[in-house]
Amino acid sequence: MNKLKQYLEDSRQMVDKELDRLLPKPVGLEESVCDAMRYSVFAGGKRIRPILLLAANKLCEGDSKQALPAACALEMVHTYSLIHDDLPAIDNGQLRRGKPTTHKKFNEAVAILAGDALLTLAFETLARCPEAFVAQLVYELATAAGTTGMIGGQVADIEWTGRGMEYPTLEFIHSHKTGALITAAIRMGAILAKADETALKSLTGYGRCLGLAFQIADDILDVESSSALTGKDSGADAALGKATYPRLFGVSESRQRCLGLIDQAKKHLADFGARADLLEGIADMVGNRTA
Amino acid sequence: MNKLKQYLEDSRQMVDKELDRLLPKPVGLEESVCDAMRYSVFAGGKRIRPILLLAANKLCEGDSKQALPAACALEMVHTYSLIHDDLPAIDNGQLRRGKPTTHKKFNEAVAILAGDALLTLAFETLARCPEAFVAQLVYELATAAGTTGMIGGQVADIEWTGRGMEYPTLEFIHSHKTGALITAAIRMGAILAKADETALKSLTGYGRCLGLAFQIADDILDVESSSALTGKDSGADAALGKATYPRLFGVSESRQRCLGLIDQAKKHLADFGARADLLEGIADMVGNRTA
Repeated sequence: MNKLKQYLEDSRQMVDKELDRLLPKPVGLEESVCDAMRYSVFAGGKRIRPILLLAANKLCEGDSKQALPAACALEMVHTYSLIHDDLPAIDNGQLRRGKPTTHKKFNEAVAILAGDALLTLAFETLARCPEAFVAQLVYELATAAGTTGMIGGQVADIEWTGRGMEYPTLEFIHSHKTGALITAAIRMGAILAKADETALKSLTGYGRCLGLAFQIADDILDVESSSALTGKDSGADAALGKATYPRLFGVSESRQRCLGLIDQAKKHLADFGARADLLEGIADMVGNRTA
Repeated sequence: MNKLKQYLEDSRQMVDKELDRLLPKPVGLEESVCDAMRYSVFAGGKRIRPILLLAANKLCEGDSKQALPAACALEMVHTYSLIHDDLPAIDNGQLRRGKPTTHKKFNEAVAILAGDALLTLAFETLARCPEAFVAQLVYELATAAGTTGMIGGQVADIEWTGRGMEYPTLEFIHSHKTGALITAAIRMGAILAKADETALKSLTGYGRCLGLAFQIADDILDVESSSALTGKDSGADAALGKATYPRLFGVSESRQRCLGLIDQAKKHLADFGARADLLEGIADMVGNRTA
């Protein structure tokens, strides 16, 4: 466990340093949008997606230095999605990671453009990866982030807010809104290490289970935790009339389902043996999330 | 001139057909955002950017079928930028191409996500181009669309709206907000035809002059034309307190500067001889824009 904590901390530091290198300096006429990009990215994220990419890459014996820019591209896409989700026209979030959301700190126009700029910079960053990987990486990220992935989940979430919802709709929303990018993180790490089809398939299975479990844990946290712990508006899902696992199944069954998915995720790692210890540890951590 | 008109019409139809193929069908839980993407893309754009890509590609003896998806990717990025520019927090546009803007037709949340989805789909589309070109194409598009290009111009435009502005600032805004994507269109067409460095340099020069001329013509149209002709809110720039060429130099000198840039643009084509007739014709057309 100490080894895992060390790995997470080292990776987080590596990712933060690389993000600092990749993000534009706030100078010139475009200063405010660059400021807003940095504010949002460095508001204290846990860097789960980049770390998953790096851990999958390490499992497949890749070169973590080479994988680092792609890891940062994922965090850019994640941050852009938070900025846009928080806009008044969508979730109207006031607090994120314990700080004012981007449109509260700056203004709506700058927040919209900072989100757009982070999404764009993510693809620019992938374009600078070793050429043999670029087409596949861009494809993975774009399909995970677009209407077939994250945006598809987000729009379904908006359309169904405040309406009664059956389980398949909730699963669609969670697996698309959160799961797609987490699965892409795992897959991109494996692709950068030239993993074979069998390994890629197992890791994709791990990613799907972990992604859904991650969002269920998030739902539970939204019900159970105070704003001080999560750094977000507490009970925001219920206030917005959003369907969540606790609302459909209650907290206790939601927790069971989350842990069931964590077990399933770890089963996908069976063939990797001890090499999978990091990804196993991360799965356990997601199952026991408290923030 | 008839030959040019025919080429523009044929290309426009080709682009529209390919866009229809590339855009997601409005089905499933993500239906509304797909509807909004199609509504915005098919609101009657002139397809100038895709046509410039195809014409540059043709000049360099490329395969237009192979270049078509990249041409459509440019139109997706252009459309996304219009949707987000029109949002209430930015220009609060009500009318675009003679129709209600996307957030008026749908709602703000769907408009934000439709823009995000078009930007993402543009990169997915480039990822499906022949692999040898993907890294370069993604790089060209991302740098032209991000803080170093279009978004940089857009944020400067917002920051300086309603304030006195010197010429260098106006030129920065125009060359970034509009010029960067037009230059990228030309460059991407040439890259897809494996143009050599010399040709690429000449065409880049053409693109830069044309892009700036295009925006000056747009400024003049905003002052001189009625909403019925442009399909946009008429006199919107002045109402928003935006700096424009007519405001800084008057209409007559603005027109002179525009035509001067058109001449410069055409000079960059000198070495191509008769092969450049399409790009020359397009430049003249931009100089004589009436809509």
